[in-house]
Amino acid sequence: MGKKLKELARLVTGEVIGKEEIVINGVGGADNAQSNQITFAQNEKFLKEAEQRAAAVIINQKLSQLEINIPVIVVDNPRLAFAKIAKEFISCPYYNSQISKQAVISPQADVGTNVSIHPGVVIAEGAKVADDVVLAPGVYVGTNVRIEAGSILHPNVVVEHDCQLGERVEVHPGTVIGAEGYGFETSEEGHVKVPQFGDVIVEDDVEIGANVTIDRAATGSTVIGRGTKMDNLIHIAHNVEIGPECLIIAQVGVAGSAKVEERVTLAGQTGVAGHLTIEDNVTVATNSVVTNDISAGSFVSGYPAHDHRAERRIKASRKKLPQMRSKMRKLEKEVAQLKEKLSKEEGI
Amino acid sequence: MGKKLKELARLVTGEVIGKEEIVINGVGGADNAQSNQITFAQNEKFLKEAEQRAAAVIINQKLSQLEINIPVIVVDNPRLAFAKIAKEFISCPYYNSQISKQAVISPQADVGTNVSIHPGVVIAEGAKVADDVVLAPGVYVGTNVRIEAGSILHPNVVVEHDCQLGERVEVHPGTVIGAEGYGFETSEEGHVKVPQFGDVIVEDDVEIGANVTIDRAATGSTVIGRGTKMDNLIHIAHNVEIGPECLIIAQVGVAGSAKVEERVTLAGQTGVAGHLTIEDNVTVATNSVVTNDISAGSFVSGYPAHDHRAERRIKASRKKLPQMRSKMRKLEKEVAQLKEKLSKEEGI
Amino acid sequence: MGKKLKELARLVTGEVIGKEEIVINGVGGADNAQSNQITFAQNEKFLKEAEQRAAAVIINQKLSQLEINIPVIVVDNPRLAFAKIAKEFISCPYYNSQISKQAVISPQADVGTNVSIHPGVVIAEGAKVADDVVLAPGVYVGTNVRIEAGSILHPNVVVEHDCQLGERVEVHPGTVIGAEGYGFETSEEGHVKVPQFGDVIVEDDVEIGANVTIDRAATGSTVIGRGTKMDNLIHIAHNVEIGPECLIIAQVGVAGSAKVEERVTLAGQTGVAGHLTIEDNVTVATNSVVTNDISAGSFVSGYPAHDHRAERRIKASRKKLPQMRSKMRKLEKEVAQLKEKLSKEEGI
Repeated sequence: MGKKLKELARLVTGEVIGKEEIVINGVGGADNAQSNQITFAQNEKFLKEAEQRAAAVIINQKLSQLEINIPVIVVDNPRLAFAKIAKEFISCPYYNSQISKQAVISPQADVGTNVSIHPGVVIAEGAKVADDVVLAPGVYVGTNVRIEAGSILHPNVVVEHDCQLGERVEVHPGTVIGAEGYGFETSEEGHVKVPQFGDVIVEDDVEIGANVTIDRAATGSTVIGRGTKMDNLIHIAHNVEIGPECLIIAQVGVAGSAKVEERVTLAGQTGVAGHLTIEDNVTVATNSVVTNDISAGSFVSGYPAHDHRAERRIKASRKKLPQMRSKMRKLEKEVAQLKEKLSKEEGI
Repeated sequence: MGKKLKELARLVTGEVIGKEEIVINGVGGADNAQSNQITFAQNEKFLKEAEQRAAAVIINQKLSQLEINIPVIVVDNPRLAFAKIAKEFISCPYYNSQISKQAVISPQADVGTNVSIHPGVVIAEGAKVADDVVLAPGVYVGTNVRIEAGSILHPNVVVEHDCQLGERVEVHPGTVIGAEGYGFETSEEGHVKVPQFGDVIVEDDVEIGANVTIDRAATGSTVIGRGTKMDNLIHIAHNVEIGPECLIIAQVGVAGSAKVEERVTLAGQTGVAGHLTIEDNVTVATNSVVTNDISAGSFVSGYPAHDHRAERRIKASRKKLPQMRSKMRKLEKEVAQLKEKLSKEEGI
Repeated sequence: MGKKLKELARLVTGEVIGKEEIVINGVGGADNAQSNQITFAQNEKFLKEAEQRAAAVIINQKLSQLEINIPVIVVDNPRLAFAKIAKEFISCPYYNSQISKQAVISPQADVGTNVSIHPGVVIAEGAKVADDVVLAPGVYVGTNVRIEAGSILHPNVVVEHDCQLGERVEVHPGTVIGAEGYGFETSEEGHVKVPQFGDVIVEDDVEIGANVTIDRAATGSTVIGRGTKMDNLIHIAHNVEIGPECLIIAQVGVAGSAKVEERVTLAGQTGVAGHLTIEDNVTVATNSVVTNDISAGSFVSGYPAHDHRAERRIKASRKKLPQMRSKMRKLEKEVAQLKEKLSKEEGI
């Protein structure tokens, strides 16, 4: 599985300084790479760590000016180059191109070629599992679900009926796609369930963390846009539309019918209220609560979420609140005294 | 599976205007219903959408005054009527009245008639699974668990030993009922587990979302009251008592021994501290932290949660904090100047 | 399974008052113990409850001064003594010393003696499962995972490749250990996954709640320290290091590379930002957001988390904000009037 350094450099259109013929057998961190592995360094500290142990190191132009005693690949963005090179060496641990006899596959399911289907997987009738898909142990694929080519579902992922996953989608363990949305109509008979007969569409190249929940739409589709990356324990309610290339960090919750447009970042534990729009390229800071539309390009925080710099000033002022109160009491006393003095003088 | 419009109208005690003999084959949204489906509309916009595609539409008295070119059912609450009619057409996708050979059922378990038990289900000894229960793939039913008639457990739901689910309970995928409560006694030997030998009682007609956790009581029972509806990723700690007909939205956490009475709404991401009482008909707004008892009928928000209107005024004032600080600095300066002037005058 | 009261007293180095030869058959709560069970009481109310039903009660020196009509064990810490005695009577419901034929165990896995392996368990190649380990239904043990002696994994727990669990670790249902960390490098090609080839190390005597997610390190290890106890629905990101004997309450999120030292308490729904250090013996109150290093022994709260008493004063002042604003408006008016008066007088 070894690759020559020059081959790896070609992959990331980088320039080799040093022995380009050496063979690399894997990737490692700057502080734990082995002597036949390549790593990367963004600053001198990590470069020195790398020099002590790695076979080669990926760096940027600036660091390449230094004296370095191992071969290097010079690129604009070492972390990106490292990410791409790592893909050459790291493969999905569930990839084995086999269909386990302990999997239960409906004869009415349509299963492609070169799939890896592990024990305990259940595929219901009408489901389509395309070529090269990996289904780890305990995965459930519901009736009429479609999973396109190259997607990887980690253990115990559940995809309920009629939902669609695009190509190269990766879903981490315990995540539930397509549970019924939360919709009830309250009447004298109690809370009556409003039927949730929509679905979930997860577009190509989406990655979803562990123990996430994405609810099916009441009608129509809940959508996760192409290339969006989601962390763990996130809640996406029914009819939410997340655009392409968004970053959604752990424990975020997005309420029903909210629309999150392109390249939006929602930082950890943030809440987004229902029926609003967060436009393109917005960043919402950690632990914010978005209660209104947010216009394109904004950086917001707080509850309700608003301009981040304004919120920072408010947070700074907030710390002075007890002092402000005592200052105010002092001012009130002083003003009262001034008034008294002045009225006495007038009285004279 | 088709039903005449007049039959559906009878079901919701509605009045038909138009051809009451037409056959309806399903339900759909106003914006996506098919030509043999019924939908509902709450306003003119949706009514126009419905007219263009649906076979019939459910509306209220007011909308029925308009000229409408498809048959209608007139009722007081169209959404509620739609919810009831939808039940006639939508059935649980796991309902098949079969017991899979790939399920593992203890000979000491008591399984009723007309159950649907899917592959990968495990039912432990002493468990009782009543008539018409549906257990989707990967469900675990622990020792001495009771699941009453008509309940539906979606894939990978776990119910640990001795817990009880009432009739018509629905639990969405990945939810864990009856994990041990979090109780430790800290000593020189570290944190020693306090045994959690209570259980969880989920009453009739409760619905629980995906990846929820409801812990068993230390002693006695954690209770979810009749007809309460819970969203996803909620945490209910040991010995919590949730009353009937509550609405608990996603990512709420309720700490140990808290008591939530009847028809309480806890909005998303709210936290409730332990050992307190939230009385009947309280609404807690999103992202609040309840740290004290809340009296019946209150609408609260904030941290600590208090009167919602007061909290709104505080949030509005909070935005003015930086201005208030600069105004205060200005006032201090002015008062100082006034004092100086006045003392000069006196000095004259 | 009965034990004499004097044996139980010896176990907790307590003193018996009353019939020390009576046989105890189990433990119960003060309000629901049966007539052959032992309970404990921390105050007179619970003591009276216990007297009415239990066979014996564990109390402290102070309560032992009272007239009590059932045998007692007197100790310094009744709750701790109760916890230890309960262990004699309560056993893991999954303990059966059997390997199910419906488990799928790789021939390349190393399985110890006296293990309990239930239906639906999958153990991948290279995994080591030590003596006395309990794997409940649906547990997945990935390639090269090590699970040391006496650990208990509840239903549907997932441990992905290369992760290590120490001795006597208990993991509750649905928890995911070793999902890939959330690391992407954004480029013109979208968000490119940065490989996550580290692992997770869970040390001895750790307990982890239900539906928790602990991500593997990008490189190196994510660590949960010896004796730490974690509640439900917690998110631990890649490269986080949690020290020994910490208490982490439900729905906490800890971002990447944060370091939490020894005996730290993180209360419910708290967020901890990445790349910071919380030193020994810190307590973070519920719903806080830690954005900076916290020094040893501090009690902090708020967003950003800071001294808890200061935060309480701020929260109290915050409630007065609308009043402060109106007072300030009044002051401004008064000062303006004073200025006017004074300038008129000067003008005279």
